[in-house]
Amino acid sequence: MPVSEDTNLNVLARGTPGFSGADLANMVNEAALSAARMNRKQVTMYDFELAKDKVLMGAERKSMLLSVEEKRVTAYHEAGHALVSSKREHSDPVHKVTIIPRGMALGVTVHLPDDRHNYTREYLETRLAMLYGGRVAEEVFLKQMSTGAGNDIERATELARSMVCEFGMSRLGPLTFGKKEEQIFLGREISQHRDYSEDTAIKIDGEVRKLVNQGYETAKNILEGSRDTLQKIAAALLEREVLDASEVLLLVDGKELPPMKSPSKPDEGVQQVLKPEPGRGIAKGGESPARA
Amino acid sequence: MPVSEDTNLNVLARGTPGFSGADLANMVNEAALSAARMNRKQVTMYDFELAKDKVLMGAERKSMLLSVEEKRVTAYHEAGHALVSSKREHSDPVHKVTIIPRGMALGVTVHLPDDRHNYTREYLETRLAMLYGGRVAEEVFLKQMSTGAGNDIERATELARSMVCEFGMSRLGPLTFGKKEEQIFLGREISQHRDYSEDTAIKIDGEVRKLVNQGYETAKNILEGSRDTLQKIAAALLEREVLDASEVLLLVDGKELPPMKSPSKPDEGVQQVLKPEPGRGIAKGGESPARA
Amino acid sequence: MPVSEDTNLNVLARGTPGFSGADLANMVNEAALSAARMNRKQVTMYDFELAKDKVLMGAERKSMLLSVEEKRVTAYHEAGHALVSSKREHSDPVHKVTIIPRGMALGVTVHLPDDRHNYTREYLETRLAMLYGGRVAEEVFLKQMSTGAGNDIERATELARSMVCEFGMSRLGPLTFGKKEEQIFLGREISQHRDYSEDTAIKIDGEVRKLVNQGYETAKNILEGSRDTLQKIAAALLEREVLDASEVLLLVDGKELPPMKSPSKPDEGVQQVLKPEPGRGIAKGGESPARA
Amino acid sequence: MPVSEDTNLNVLARGTPGFSGADLANMVNEAALSAARMNRKQVTMYDFELAKDKVLMGAERKSMLLSVEEKRVTAYHEAGHALVSSKREHSDPVHKVTIIPRGMALGVTVHLPDDRHNYTREYLETRLAMLYGGRVAEEVFLKQMSTGAGNDIERATELARSMVCEFGMSRLGPLTFGKKEEQIFLGREISQHRDYSEDTAIKIDGEVRKLVNQGYETAKNILEGSRDTLQKIAAALLEREVLDASEVLLLVDGKELPPMKSPSKPDEGVQQVLKPEPGRGIAKGGESPARA
Amino acid sequence: MPVSEDTNLNVLARGTPGFSGADLANMVNEAALSAARMNRKQVTMYDFELAKDKVLMGAERKSMLLSVEEKRVTAYHEAGHALVSSKREHSDPVHKVTIIPRGMALGVTVHLPDDRHNYTREYLETRLAMLYGGRVAEEVFLKQMSTGAGNDIERATELARSMVCEFGMSRLGPLTFGKKEEQIFLGREISQHRDYSEDTAIKIDGEVRKLVNQGYETAKNILEGSRDTLQKIAAALLEREVLDASEVLLLVDGKELPPMKSPSKPDEGVQQVLKPEPGRGIAKGGESPARA
Amino acid sequence: MPVSEDTNLNVLARGTPGFSGADLANMVNEAALSAARMNRKQVTMYDFELAKDKVLMGAERKSMLLSVEEKRVTAYHEAGHALVSSKREHSDPVHKVTIIPRGMALGVTVHLPDDRHNYTREYLETRLAMLYGGRVAEEVFLKQMSTGAGNDIERATELARSMVCEFGMSRLGPLTFGKKEEQIFLGREISQHRDYSEDTAIKIDGEVRKLVNQGYETAKNILEGSRDTLQKIAAALLEREVLDASEVLLLVDGKELPPMKSPSKPDEGVQQVLKPEPGRGIAKGGESPARA
Repeated sequence: MPVSEDTNLNVLARGTPGFSGADLANMVNEAALSAARMNRKQVTMYDFELAKDKVLMGAERKSMLLSVEEKRVTAYHEAGHALVSSKREHSDPVHKVTIIPRGMALGVTVHLPDDRHNYTREYLETRLAMLYGGRVAEEVFLKQMSTGAGNDIERATELARSMVCEFGMSRLGPLTFGKKEEQIFLGREISQHRDYSEDTAIKIDGEVRKLVNQGYETAKNILEGSRDTLQKIAAALLEREVLDASEVLLLVDGKELPPMKSPSKPDEGVQQVLKPEPGRGIAKGGESPARA
Repeated sequence: MPVSEDTNLNVLARGTPGFSGADLANMVNEAALSAARMNRKQVTMYDFELAKDKVLMGAERKSMLLSVEEKRVTAYHEAGHALVSSKREHSDPVHKVTIIPRGMALGVTVHLPDDRHNYTREYLETRLAMLYGGRVAEEVFLKQMSTGAGNDIERATELARSMVCEFGMSRLGPLTFGKKEEQIFLGREISQHRDYSEDTAIKIDGEVRKLVNQGYETAKNILEGSRDTLQKIAAALLEREVLDASEVLLLVDGKELPPMKSPSKPDEGVQQVLKPEPGRGIAKGGESPARA
Repeated sequence: MPVSEDTNLNVLARGTPGFSGADLANMVNEAALSAARMNRKQVTMYDFELAKDKVLMGAERKSMLLSVEEKRVTAYHEAGHALVSSKREHSDPVHKVTIIPRGMALGVTVHLPDDRHNYTREYLETRLAMLYGGRVAEEVFLKQMSTGAGNDIERATELARSMVCEFGMSRLGPLTFGKKEEQIFLGREISQHRDYSEDTAIKIDGEVRKLVNQGYETAKNILEGSRDTLQKIAAALLEREVLDASEVLLLVDGKELPPMKSPSKPDEGVQQVLKPEPGRGIAKGGESPARA
Repeated sequence: MPVSEDTNLNVLARGTPGFSGADLANMVNEAALSAARMNRKQVTMYDFELAKDKVLMGAERKSMLLSVEEKRVTAYHEAGHALVSSKREHSDPVHKVTIIPRGMALGVTVHLPDDRHNYTREYLETRLAMLYGGRVAEEVFLKQMSTGAGNDIERATELARSMVCEFGMSRLGPLTFGKKEEQIFLGREISQHRDYSEDTAIKIDGEVRKLVNQGYETAKNILEGSRDTLQKIAAALLEREVLDASEVLLLVDGKELPPMKSPSKPDEGVQQVLKPEPGRGIAKGGESPARA
Repeated sequence: MPVSEDTNLNVLARGTPGFSGADLANMVNEAALSAARMNRKQVTMYDFELAKDKVLMGAERKSMLLSVEEKRVTAYHEAGHALVSSKREHSDPVHKVTIIPRGMALGVTVHLPDDRHNYTREYLETRLAMLYGGRVAEEVFLKQMSTGAGNDIERATELARSMVCEFGMSRLGPLTFGKKEEQIFLGREISQHRDYSEDTAIKIDGEVRKLVNQGYETAKNILEGSRDTLQKIAAALLEREVLDASEVLLLVDGKELPPMKSPSKPDEGVQQVLKPEPGRGIAKGGESPARA
Repeated sequence: MPVSEDTNLNVLARGTPGFSGADLANMVNEAALSAARMNRKQVTMYDFELAKDKVLMGAERKSMLLSVEEKRVTAYHEAGHALVSSKREHSDPVHKVTIIPRGMALGVTVHLPDDRHNYTREYLETRLAMLYGGRVAEEVFLKQMSTGAGNDIERATELARSMVCEFGMSRLGPLTFGKKEEQIFLGREISQHRDYSEDTAIKIDGEVRKLVNQGYETAKNILEGSRDTLQKIAAALLEREVLDASEVLLLVDGKELPPMKSPSKPDEGVQQVLKPEPGRGIAKGGESPARA
């Protein structure tokens, strides 16, 4: 099937960092299916954008019925992630926030990548704070704690552990701890061989906890210092279901949103670029970029 | 085989959350068999209800002979589960209580689901109390302790451990502990890699124990504060073998039950909806929803 | 081969609780073989009884020569089991005691089942005492300790551990400890995953030990309080090799036994019912119900 | 090939306790080969005796050249085993002592079995002392310590561990410790699952050590109290290479040996009965009854 | 394809220590491909040099776009490695430093080998310092810490651990600790069996940490004592992308670099010899000599 | 191919203790190849000697270029081994010392076997000292520590551990510690099951360390007490590359060496007998008798 003239492969390529050959093939296939479903004779940029989102985040699950309460919890949760990112200098900028379920996630906050190969301690500390933004928002604004933050907590713990055990970014100094069977850059190990003493294990636990607590406190300070903004983002999410980068920015800057536009047609030319989290690349498995 | 006009697929669908394709096929098959056994030319809603219960809870085992003593223990045990659920705000509502053996269980207490995807700490704490309702009822009213609570205890311990190690709901803070080989949402891990120190293990044990004890004490307070109600539920179970939601409610409200109706014909149109426990979905294995 | 008129299938069925299909097939086969060996044209109730004992306890090994000393030790050992059972309210009643070797065991004490599905703490504590009856009898009456109690000790330890780790029947409270790969009711796990701290392991060991010691002391108090009775049972076993329920009862009541009858012909119509120990059912493996 | 008239199958049968069918087949085969090598037309009792020794202890290795020093060490070592056995009431009686290498062993001390099925603590404690007889003899008489006792030490440690962990014969009381994958009576486990705390492990180590030390001290007291006898046995072994039961007894009783007879012709009708160590039966593997 | 006259096989051979047969075949193949790409009829020394670099370090990835910031970080990082090497007597001399990405690495510092088979403690200590040169340069000059040093840290930790556990070069004395399943000289073990106590594990951790800290401090002292030189090397790298041995030496000696020449044509006859790190030979796996 | 008349099979047999059938076949093959290479029609004793050395120690690697410095280190290292052996009564006598690389080793010290089957504590302690002779020589005379002693250290640690854990030769007494999956006499275990407490593990580590330190100190005392001799042996090795037993003895006795003869022609009839280390027999694997 031919590709329409509006298709800009450069833009597509920049929006798919970390895609494996299989991911790309998958995306092209999905785009062709989308065009066929629409009875188009050409695959358009619009089809490619839909296909890319589907490969990156899993299919939208509009049929998945959330209760009003769960929509509200999800909105605050995602607003928490988005606001922490927006307030921190070292974070990747927010690209899109949505409370439409996709794959396993009830909502997703997506970041713009800038193709880094190196991650500084500040960047990773900010990431920790961003990951806790959801749980903190639930605690501060809804006075509750839910299982929805389980995946964020797992990723934050893994990241903090890597900072201590792989990157020498704690008081334990520039050593690695534990032997991994398969080492992928900033990625997840398949199996791990413990080669240190119990004494060192206690210190590792302490340093991991310190990093995690610091990220949690950072998130809390940010959200408690911007209560109005968070509530506005959550409200906007409940109203519109999706917010793009510029909309989040307007709200963070204390401005009003322009009137709603059709939410799911990305044909306005905005580049849809998703930022896979470091070391959790698309190529590394079938894991959808779960709700962060 | 044709489906009778009374069959309401919407109601059936709402009553089978968590059913896999195989479960659904199994249910349809059982319904057809049931109709055939009754020499009906159509599969009726009644057949579907029987089939659904069988898939969810295992076949009724009316041939399994319980002694009078075991019937009595089972009645108090299930009454304990049902009463704790009925007295707590955050619990799923009780749907049905039975002391007819099904699968491996001597009795079952079933809850109405409401399709949650997120579980709050209050919800999970209430679940812990509900799980201990059976053991506590035996202790308080029969002055005994039996192996029948083994499965409840196992599920409560697993849940409390998840709250501490996966969901950051204890004083250990928002960290995960242990690496699972296969992670299914709120589900059961196949194998677990311990990646923390002995020191942390001691703290985890302490937090798990605290949650468990709290659930146990909650159950005890409820049952000791409603001794009459519990004994009435147990007595009604011994007399009727099955109590539906409205009957449990009447008893909890201190009212009398209407005269007995035929216990196993759900053709009065009540929606038979079973609530699989979070993370222990039907799709996850052949485990029958053991007596809770 | 036809079945004789005297065969009462109901009685047979009640005497084979826990039999799998394979066990039943095995029993029928053995009964036919027994009839053929006797040149009978019909399989009689007598053949079925022999066959059932063989499937349950293994073949009699009359050719296995025990020294006089070993016969004596075995008689005291089995008398110890039988007397503890007879003196305790919560025990299953003794059905038969024998010092004819069967399978791996030099002697066997068999109990009458009553088809329980639930086991109370009192029942299990009595079982512990019964299991230690053999070792204690050797210690108190023969002033020796032998390897013959090894299997009793193993089963008692497993039972006490289950009480602590599966059934919440110790001061550790209503928690489970350890993840089993395959869980069979009150049965034996194939492999176990330790998911608790060393600190908890110490407490578990302590509680297991307490239960075990309590069972041992109970057995000791009973046997030391009924020295004459035990010696009479042992003497009767040495004389007759098998004692049935009524004979054990007579001796426990301080009465004399009637003159000896032919020991191995169960054609007097007594129902031969063996009680498999909970969770160690026939269906669970090829384990013979070793000398308890 | 026909069997000679002098062959007494009863005597053979009593001399092969623990033989599996394969062992018996092996023995018959070896006997036939022996007869053929001698150009006999019949298999004689003599052939059977040779064959039995070969199956039990491995082939004689007369071609294995030992230095004078090693012969001397072996003689004292075996004399130590033999003398401890002879001086202890609860031991199986010595049947034969040899310093002709067989299989992996430089020498062997063989005991007369008496077909026990039960082993008392006294019997096992004596066995421990017997096992240390060899090492102690080297230490006391040759002022040396050698690797030759490695197998004795391993067996003694295993036995002491079984006494503590399987047979409830220590201050740890009547419990088992550790789960074995395959349990063979008093035998060796294939793999062991540790199910107790470190605290208990320390106590187990202490009790095992106590039993072992006690066995060692017993052996030392016996050998130091009978220095002359031990030296006479060692000297006789160096002269004759094999001593039978009566010869050992004469020396233990302080008497002189009769003049040497041909050492390897057991046609004097003495029953050659070897005692496999408990739980280490012939049927359990290809392990030769190493030098004890 | 014929080989050109300029090809000096001796020089090639000296530049490929540790090459396996497969590596050599691979190199020859790559050289032929390079010649073909250039439409040459002969394989020249230039082709062999390119091919060797590719096999040793992975293909150049000129298409991999680094941000200006990442180029700068990489330049300081590699300058740190190079300067530590240049200032230490026991180090292999630096051969080449590059910030052109190759394989997984953003930059590489390569050393001249001298075919050692034995490594002294001084040599290994210097290696530790060299490995930390990159991280220290980032910390001292850029006031940051990044994940880019992860691989250096891992290699340094492994080396320090080998010094303690394999080579007896710490206060723990001349013992080995841990059993490796496959031992390759100074290489990496596939799997390791811990055969020492927790107490010893604590001491090992302490000694490893001491060695690592010492290497880190040495690197810090060198770089802080030569701030100007480091900045000049980093600047030159940013300008030229590759520095050869003589260029590094000029800068270390405080002199100016001659005007830039074409960076990637090694036809000036300089011998391109790369030094694989001890025990991490080319033959040992497909690991590219990551950025050190 | 015929064997020459000068071939003495007895001498060959005595020089190949521990050879498996495959080793012998290998040796005969190598001898035939050697004869063929020399265009001889018969295989001579000389060919057999070369072949035996090759099978035992690996092929000579004259093409392996060592630097002058490495030759010097190797000479002192081997001189250390040889001198410790020569000065200790309980050692096997030195047969040959060489600094010609063979297999993986840069040099080899070979001992004359005397076909022991038993090893005394004195013998093993001397062996420990001999193993440390190389490291100590480097430390004392070259003031350095190198990786070249890694294999010696590993073997010494294993030997010391066996003395403590298998042979009851430490203060821990006559017990074994740890279960081996495959036990080969004094050999290496494939996998080991730890069956003792952490407390015992600490004691084991302490005893192993004591034995190792004692061996190290013994070596140090010997070498520091014979500085001249060691330097003369090292010098002779550097000059001649190989020293035979008589040459080492002359130097140890303070005498001068006779003028050099052709080093690699063993046709002077000296029996080339190599002593494999106990429990590390040729038959046990392809391990070359690395530089000791």
